[in-house]
Amino acid sequence: MSDLLKQFENYKVQKLDINMARGKPCPEQLNLSLPMLDIVNSKSNCFDEDIDCRNYSALEGIPDCKKLFADILDIPSENILVEGASSMNIMHNLLSKSIISGICGEKPFSKQGKIKWLCPVPGYDRHFAMTEYFGFEMINIPMDDNGPDMDLIEEYVKDPQVKGIWCVPKYSNPTGIIYSDEVVRRFARLKPAAKDFRIYWDNTYISQLSFNGEEEPILNIFDECKKYGSEDLVYEFASTSKMTFPGSGVSAVALSDNNKKDYLNYLQYQLICFDKLNQLRHALFLKDKKTIIEHMKKHAKILKPKFDLVLKIFDEELKDIAIWSKPTGGYFISLYVKDKAKEVVEKCKEMGVTLTKAGSAYPYRKDPDNSHIRIAPTYLADDELETATRVICLAVKLVK
Amino acid sequence: MSDLLKQFENYKVQKLDINMARGKPCPEQLNLSLPMLDIVNSKSNCFDEDIDCRNYSALEGIPDCKKLFADILDIPSENILVEGASSMNIMHNLLSKSIISGICGEKPFSKQGKIKWLCPVPGYDRHFAMTEYFGFEMINIPMDDNGPDMDLIEEYVKDPQVKGIWCVPKYSNPTGIIYSDEVVRRFARLKPAAKDFRIYWDNTYISQLSFNGEEEPILNIFDECKKYGSEDLVYEFASTSKMTFPGSGVSAVALSDNNKKDYLNYLQYQLICFDKLNQLRHALFLKDKKTIIEHMKKHAKILKPKFDLVLKIFDEELKDIAIWSKPTGGYFISLYVKDKAKEVVEKCKEMGVTLTKAGSAYPYRKDPDNSHIRIAPTYLADDELETATRVICLAVKLVK
Repeated sequence: MSDLLKQFENYKVQKLDINMARGKPCPEQLNLSLPMLDIVNSKSNCFDEDIDCRNYSALEGIPDCKKLFADILDIPSENILVEGASSMNIMHNLLSKSIISGICGEKPFSKQGKIKWLCPVPGYDRHFAMTEYFGFEMINIPMDDNGPDMDLIEEYVKDPQVKGIWCVPKYSNPTGIIYSDEVVRRFARLKPAAKDFRIYWDNTYISQLSFNGEEEPILNIFDECKKYGSEDLVYEFASTSKMTFPGSGVSAVALSDNNKKDYLNYLQYQLICFDKLNQLRHALFLKDKKTIIEHMKKHAKILKPKFDLVLKIFDEELKDIAIWSKPTGGYFISLYVKDKAKEVVEKCKEMGVTLTKAGSAYPYRKDPDNSHIRIAPTYLADDELETATRVICLAVKLVK
Repeated sequence: MSDLLKQFENYKVQKLDINMARGKPCPEQLNLSLPMLDIVNSKSNCFDEDIDCRNYSALEGIPDCKKLFADILDIPSENILVEGASSMNIMHNLLSKSIISGICGEKPFSKQGKIKWLCPVPGYDRHFAMTEYFGFEMINIPMDDNGPDMDLIEEYVKDPQVKGIWCVPKYSNPTGIIYSDEVVRRFARLKPAAKDFRIYWDNTYISQLSFNGEEEPILNIFDECKKYGSEDLVYEFASTSKMTFPGSGVSAVALSDNNKKDYLNYLQYQLICFDKLNQLRHALFLKDKKTIIEHMKKHAKILKPKFDLVLKIFDEELKDIAIWSKPTGGYFISLYVKDKAKEVVEKCKEMGVTLTKAGSAYPYRKDPDNSHIRIAPTYLADDELETATRVICLAVKLVK
C-alpha cells in the first residue's frame, strides 16, 4: 500500500465529521456581537423619532437604520429600504416581482418568453440556484482579478431577453477579488437593450475589512451611475449577516427613485412592516461607519489566522500540483484542480470532510473544467481546520 | 344653525387629529411583552437543541418555536414552519409561488388564465388588496354569524378557475364572529374542481381570549380535514402579532405533508433561514399554551373597557338609526349605516377623526350597500377613544 493510501485509510478509520461546506462565521465571531442582545431591553425607549418600534408602521425601515446603511453604502438614506434578516430574500422578492408584475411598467417576465441572466463565474451558488429555479437561461461570464469580462457583458446586453446579472463586487464569492474601478464604471455605462435589465449588485461584504484590518474601498456604483443617468440600472444589496448574527440581522436594498417607487408599490401589498426592534438593535449597536470599522477589525483578527493556516498548508503540500486564490478578504479560497474537482470532493467526503459540491460555483452546477473547489475556512476551529485542510491536500494528491 | 351643526363646527375648530383606521394594539398592550426583550441577552445560551440561533441554519424554524405553534394550533410540530415577523408575508409568498411555479405540480397560475378568488364579506382589507394586486377576480361571499355562506362556496368551487378563499375564522376581521363547527366541517368536506384550490385559513386571532378573558375555541380544521383526507386543502396561518409586538413577532404556517414539501422546495431557494433569535425570544417568553392564556388575559383586560366604551356610546346615541356588531373578542366593531358609510367616514375626517376608508372591507373597496364602517377601538387612549366615538355618532346623525 502506498504511503498516500495508508494516510487515506488512516483518515477513514477516524470517522471524521467535519463540515466545511458553507461560509458561516465561527462562534468567536458571533460572540463579538453579544452585547447587541442587551441594547434593546425592557427599560429601553423603543422609539426612533416618532416611531414606536414595537408596533406596526414604517415599511421602509426606521430612520436610524436607514441612516446606518446610507453610511455603509454612501447613498442617501431616502434611497434605502431596510427589510428583514435576509438580503437574499430581497433579491428573491425583486425577481418574483419581475416575473409576476414586471419592472417599472415593463411586461412581467412571465409574459416575455425566455429570460436570460448573466452569471459571472465562478460565483455564488445560491444566486445561481435561484435563477435556475425561476427557469432563466443562465449564461457564464468568465471573471479575472478585475471582475467579470466586460466586453462579453456589453455584447450580451444587446439581446433584449437578457434581463440581469448577478454581481458580488467586493470579496467576490468565491474568488475573493474586488471589482476594479474600470469594471464598475463600465457597469454604470452599460446600455442594455432591455429597459428592465437590472444589475443585482450584492454588496454583502461591503463593510468587510482585509484580513489585515484595512479598508479596501470599491468604487460607488451609484455615484458612477449618476454621471451617466443610469441609476435605474442597479439594485444594490447589503446586510449585517457578516457583521452581527447571520440569519438574525437586518438587510437593505439601495434603489434609485424610480426603482424605489416601483418596488414599494409591490411591497405595500406584501406586509405591513419588517422587524423594527431588530433594526433598532442594529442601529444602536453598529451606530455608524466608524463604529462598524472598529467592529470589523475584530472580525478580521479572528479570520486572518484561519486563512493563513489554510494557505500555509496549501503552500507546503500543493505547490506545483494545484493553484488557488490568495484573497485579501471575504469568506472563501478558490482551489483549482483541473479535471479533478469532483473526485477531490468525493475523496474528502470518504475521509469525513464535507466540502461545497464541486461545480456549485457555476450555473447548473457545471464547471466546464471540473476544476474549481470552494474552500470555506471561517467556521471551523483551528484543529479541525488543519485536519480538513490536510484531508483536502491528500485528496488532491490521491486523484492526481 | 341646528344643534348638530353646532356640534360639528365645534369639533372642527378643535382641529382633532385622531387616527382610528388600523387594528393596532395600544401601548399598554405592548408593555405586557417588555420582559421578553430581556430574555435573550448577552449571557444567554442561544442554542435550541443543537442549533446555534445566532448562525445560519434551520429554515423550518427552531424546534421550540415550532412546538409553541404546535401547541397553539393543536397540530403536530412537523407540520409547522416558523418564519419571520409577518404572516401576511407568508400568504403573499404562497400566492407568489402559486403564480410563478404552481401548487403541488399543477400549472402556475400565470399560465392558467383568469384566476378567481372567493372573498367572504365584510373581510380583511389587506387580504383583498393582495389578491386585487395579483389580478385575481374576487367574488363576494356574504357572511352571517356562523361564517361565510357555505352553499354558495360549494357551488362556486365547481368552477376550476376558482383557486382559493380568504378566511379569518376566529374573531373574523371585521365582524368579530367565530365560524361555527358546521361551517368548519363544510370547509373540510369541500370538493373543489381545481386541484390547486387552497383555503387561506388566517387564524391570526386563534390565541385571543374573549374580552371577559375566556377561551372561545374554534373547531380544528386540520383534524376535520383528516377525517375526509383533505388536509392538502388548507394553509393555516398564525402569528404573535397580537400577543407580543406587531411587526416584530414571529409567524407560522401549518401545512399538510404534501403542501410542506411543495412549499419548502420553493422556500429553500429564497433564503437561508428566518430570524431564529427572535424565534428563541418568543419560545422562551410565551412557553406554551397555558402561559399564553395567562398573557392573553392581560390583553383582554386592557381591551374590554375600550370595546365597552364604544358600545355604550353607540347604545346611547345610535339606537334606531344604525346597527352594529357586538363582538366577544377580536379587534373591531362593524357599524352599519345603510347607503351612508362613505358620507359618515368623510364627515369624521372633516372633524379630524380618520377611520378605515368606507368600502375597505369589500373587494375593490366596493361595499354594495355603502353601509359598513370598520371601527378599531384598540389603539386609542380612553379620552381620545371617547371623543372619536362621539364624533362617529355625530357624523351618523348628520348624514341621516
